[in-house]
Formats: sequence, C-alpha cells, structure tokens
Amino acid sequence: MSAGISTLSWRNNAVILLDQKLLPAEERFLTCTHYEEVLAAIRDLTVRGAPAIGVATAMGIALGALTLPDDSPEAFQKGFETMCNAFAQARPTARNLFWAIERMKRCFLENYSVDGSGTDSAKVRQALVAEARQMAEEDVAINKRLGRLGQALIPDGCRILTHCNAGALATAGYGTALGVIRAAHEAGKQVQVFADETRPVLQGARLTAWELQQENIPVTLITDNMAGFLMKQRRIDCIIVGADRIAANGDTANKIGTYTLAVLAKVHSIPFYVAAPLSTVDMQLSSGEDIPIEERPGEEILTIRGMQIAPAGVNVYNPAFDVTPCSYISAIITEAGIAEQPYESSLKEFLLSIS
Amino acid sequence: MSAGISTLSWRNNAVILLDQKLLPAEERFLTCTHYEEVLAAIRDLTVRGAPAIGVATAMGIALGALTLPDDSPEAFQKGFETMCNAFAQARPTARNLFWAIERMKRCFLENYSVDGSGTDSAKVRQALVAEARQMAEEDVAINKRLGRLGQALIPDGCRILTHCNAGALATAGYGTALGVIRAAHEAGKQVQVFADETRPVLQGARLTAWELQQENIPVTLITDNMAGFLMKQRRIDCIIVGADRIAANGDTANKIGTYTLAVLAKVHSIPFYVAAPLSTVDMQLSSGEDIPIEERPGEEILTIRGMQIAPAGVNVYNPAFDVTPCSYISAIITEAGIAEQPYESSLKEFLLSIS
Repeated sequence: MSAGISTLSWRNNAVILLDQKLLPAEERFLTCTHYEEVLAAIRDLTVRGAPAIGVATAMGIALGALTLPDDSPEAFQKGFETMCNAFAQARPTARNLFWAIERMKRCFLENYSVDGSGTDSAKVRQALVAEARQMAEEDVAINKRLGRLGQALIPDGCRILTHCNAGALATAGYGTALGVIRAAHEAGKQVQVFADETRPVLQGARLTAWELQQENIPVTLITDNMAGFLMKQRRIDCIIVGADRIAANGDTANKIGTYTLAVLAKVHSIPFYVAAPLSTVDMQLSSGEDIPIEERPGEEILTIRGMQIAPAGVNVYNPAFDVTPCSYISAIITEAGIAEQPYESSLKEFLLSIS
Repeated sequence: MSAGISTLSWRNNAVILLDQKLLPAEERFLTCTHYEEVLAAIRDLTVRGAPAIGVATAMGIALGALTLPDDSPEAFQKGFETMCNAFAQARPTARNLFWAIERMKRCFLENYSVDGSGTDSAKVRQALVAEARQMAEEDVAINKRLGRLGQALIPDGCRILTHCNAGALATAGYGTALGVIRAAHEAGKQVQVFADETRPVLQGARLTAWELQQENIPVTLITDNMAGFLMKQRRIDCIIVGADRIAANGDTANKIGTYTLAVLAKVHSIPFYVAAPLSTVDMQLSSGEDIPIEERPGEEILTIRGMQIAPAGVNVYNPAFDVTPCSYISAIITEAGIAEQPYESSLKEFLLSIS
C-alpha cells in the first residue's frame, strides 16, 4: 500500500503538496493558501503526473473560490472563470487538467444561480471544496480499481519496465502504471521492476525508485538508453506506462521516451500497456497528431539541480512528451476495464459505462 | 579543424592527457610520468573513446618501458609483459586497446634480441616511444581519410544524429563519427547535428556539444529518450556513431543506447552509419555475441558529479555498451573505404588492403 505517500491533500482550507522537486533527498510539504501557489506548483513540477495535476487543479480552483470577491454574482462568476483560464494555461498536454477544470465549472454552475433569488456564494464555495476533495478520493479508488483489473495481465515472476513516474506521486494515491504493479505485488505475485531514470527531470530515478523502494517492490534503476539492450537480452516481459492524454483512437501522449519504448517493445514482441483513468481520454481528438506537446525550458537539460552539465549557450530541444500511435499499444488499462483494439469503440464503450 | 583540441600527446617523456571528466567546465591536462597513471586514466575515463584508448595504451606502454628494470633481458621482457597484461585489464570492450597492446608487443619483439649479443634496452625503449607516437599520428591521418570518404554519404543540409562522443576527444584527433561530420562541414555542406546527451557519463552533453560548438558546427542537445520522437517527426536524415569493437560479421559494440538508435533508424527508414578505423575490427570474433560488455559502477547512474540523484541503496544495472546487429547497419565507414553488407567479405578485403 501507498499509505506512506501523501502526494496532495486538502487541510484547513489549504492545499498541501509534497514537493516532488526535492525528492528523494528531502520530503518537504508545501502549504498553498492562495490558488496562485497551486498554479505555480503545477508549472514548476512541484506536483506532476496527469491525474495529480487534475486533482491539484480542482483543489486550486476550490482554494481560489474561497477568496473570490462576491460583491455581485457577475463579479463572482467572472473571477471564477478568470481563475479557470489561468489553470488552463498551466500545462498544455495533460488531459486531466482540462477535465478537472470542466468538472469544477459544472459544479460551479450547478450551485450557482443568477435568477432573482441572488447567489449564495458560500454554498458554491462549499460545493467546490467538496467536489475537489471527492475527486481526490475518487482518483485513489479509480487507481485501485484499474490496478486490480490490470494486474490480471501480469504473470507471476514478471519483469516489468516502466518509464517516468505513474505512481502514487503522479496521482492522488496508489498510481496508474505503478498501481497495476502494486496490485500484482499485493496479489502475491513476484514482480521485478526496471525503472528508466527518465531524463531530463529524472522522475524514474527520483520518484519511481523511491516509491517502490518504500514498499519493498524489487526495482532496478537504469538510464533511458539501456532499455533497448535489456529487451534484446530478453530481460523484460512487459512494459507499463501511464498517460498524459489519450486520443479517441488510443494514440497516447506520455513522458518523452515512451514512443521509443513502444517501438522497441514491438520489435522485441513484448506487450506494451498503458494504464490511465478514463479522465485522461480526450474524445475530442480523433488522433494523437492533435495533442499539444509541451516544450519545457532548456535549463532542464543543461543543468541538473543547478549544476551545469553542458557547455553554456548550446542549443537545446526539450519536448516533455511524445505520442505513441495506438498500433503500438497492446492494451489500455482503465477503471472500467481493459481496452483493446480498436480503441475508438472500446474506449467509447467504457466512457459510456461510467457516465 | 580540431587544431584546438589536444586529447593526448607525448611530451618530454610524459603522456599528456586532457582530463575529459572535467569538461566542459574545465580544460585541465594531466601529466602522466608513470604508466600506472595512464592506466588509471583509462579506467576512470579521463581518456575514453576506443581509438583514444588505443593510443593512450600505446603511450602508456612506451612510458612504462622507459623505467622497466633491465638487469637482465629476461627481467626486461617479463616486466614488459606484466605491464601489457595490466593494460589488457583496464577496460574490456574497446578492441583498439588490445590492438595497441599487440602492436606494441610486436614492436618490442622486433627490437629485442636474447641471442648471445644481449639486449639493447635503450634501443627497444626508443622504438616503443617512436611506435606510440607514430600510432597517434596515424590515428589522426586515418580519421581524416575516413572522414573524407564518409562525407560522401552526407547530403547538403543533412540533419545528423550522433550518440556519445566519437570526436577529436575520442581519438588522437579529428574523430570518427564527428570526423565524417567535420569533413562534410569542411566540404562546405550545411550540416545540423543533434547530439544525444548520452547518460550516464554525458559524453554527448559534455564532449560532443563542446567540440562542435568550438568549430561552429550547428548542434542541438537532446536527452537520449528524445531521439525516437525526432525521428518520428522526420527531423533526422541519418545517424552516425563510432564503435568500440566490430565483429567479423559487422556486429558493432558501441556506447549503451546505440542499439536503440539503430532499431529506431530501421523502423523510420533512416540510414544508420558506423564510422571507425579498421583497428576497431576484431576478426577473431565471428559475431557480436562474443564481445565482452563492460559493466561500470552504479555510482555513475546514482550520482552526477558527486551529487546524489536517486535514493540511496537502490539497485542499478550499468552496462557501458550494447551490440548493434550488422543487419541494422547501413554502412561501416573505414579509412580503406565504405564497407557494405555482407561485412564479412567487405571488412576482410579492407583489412587485407592495409596489411
């Protein structure tokens, strides 16, 4: 269980975030009492991982709503929308961020009236806080459900490669890809994990290795460029990754390097699984070509924790994500079931089943 | 030209090595006056890159020979052999190290006699120093020749991906993979280089980016896991890498991550070239399966310049090289010509042509 890891929570009208930039050297929590702090924390990767970004966004919006001026219903609504727009600009790729904004907007409208009776802003605020807290609880429950379903794909003795961190730290708890691995472990299966360190931000080395170590799930850390050699040596039985956005056809945006793993998996006939809640699915996009890919500052490549590792002034290209075509994906593990090709219909069916 | 980069040289009975561990932050030279210092410098990557390791080994052996006890011809020869054995243990994968030892042994025997006339150890020493210095000069000439031949494969406007450092810093000068790029640049072609940073030791970020920057050859630094995405975006026209050992059938050991690039190149129909002197070819090994792969300390992955980046005590796997099957290699660029499939015959022909 991941009882020991508290990625994000709501306490005393504040959002408490585990500062993931500092892990594993330091476990420090950031207490946000203004929504701008949550916004900054999403931007600077204090909190990261699509599902965690979604919940943090919801909590940030709830936090902001507490102090929105409510001199008039119009001002209240306008302030709410401005805040939502600010969150929508925080990071472009993770679907869950936009999903969370949409859900909070719906909650706002359901509890808000501009008819003659006037608006009870206190009621709206309370509803938004309750909604955000519920989303955090739901996220953990969803991850446990998808973990339980997904672990059926993991044979005893399985040697699993994962990339980046799709664990308790990337969600409100338990994790997606690591949720499947946790569930297999809890089911008594012997699993062995190879974790890509995941440059440039080293989420694999800093977060995944740390998370798995805390639960005594055997983990071996490798650099990203070693994964192919391990597959060639037949030391990997399957690959499981999370997702930042899944298009209607199953094309999946995830941390940069995922596409390379999927190509290698296909060449070596290794199953390649994506594990994600349905809130990551974007039915508005027919294929992955339309998923916006965030480019992050070159500093992430040129320096490691402030230490220069490349010559000053060198050009850098730093896309944070890539898109894996659906044809490379063996299955998409969701809370409503394990989606298989063609994903257009299987994902649609699952989305209908939970709506 | 790489006139500004002095990777290794022989001066006043000392071996001068540019300390590549410190680049690009610092350009510091190590003056070795005992062969054990050269040995340590090869082991700890002060000097690295198969051709540079070969020349450093030859210079190290020449340096050691200067102070070998010559009380008797037998003691002199025994000391020489002990020293050669020590170099043979320094690093296991680079063929050039063993090639250099063989060449220095041949030189020793040609200048050494144990017949009644006694041994003139001064003559042997002089011959060994001359041989090592000649090997350094030859290496630069060979690289310029293979660069000139190889640049015919590079069209104007080519966007080239390279991995690790196969440049002036990996050789006595000019470079192999970067030698081809230099030659294309000198021929007036517009080339654009993408350099993989090459974890764990970051030879791409620290050395390749630095080398190319010094000569104003356009270079963009990426993390290793971005290469696949670039190929998918059709932003790479060809890949050129060096080699640490090439088996008789063309299977090529090179820096970890090379195999992954070759797989990606094939999937994306991008030419994948290996550039190496014929001293890297090991005709004793019929295929790459027999190439010994060095595993290096986990510290290289767990820390960057002494700074911990992963949780303490986590398992690590750190193979320094992988093997790319010959079927993934479009051509092998050597000083005697551009070898094509089947490499058994083309490489053999080239080796005969220079013997």
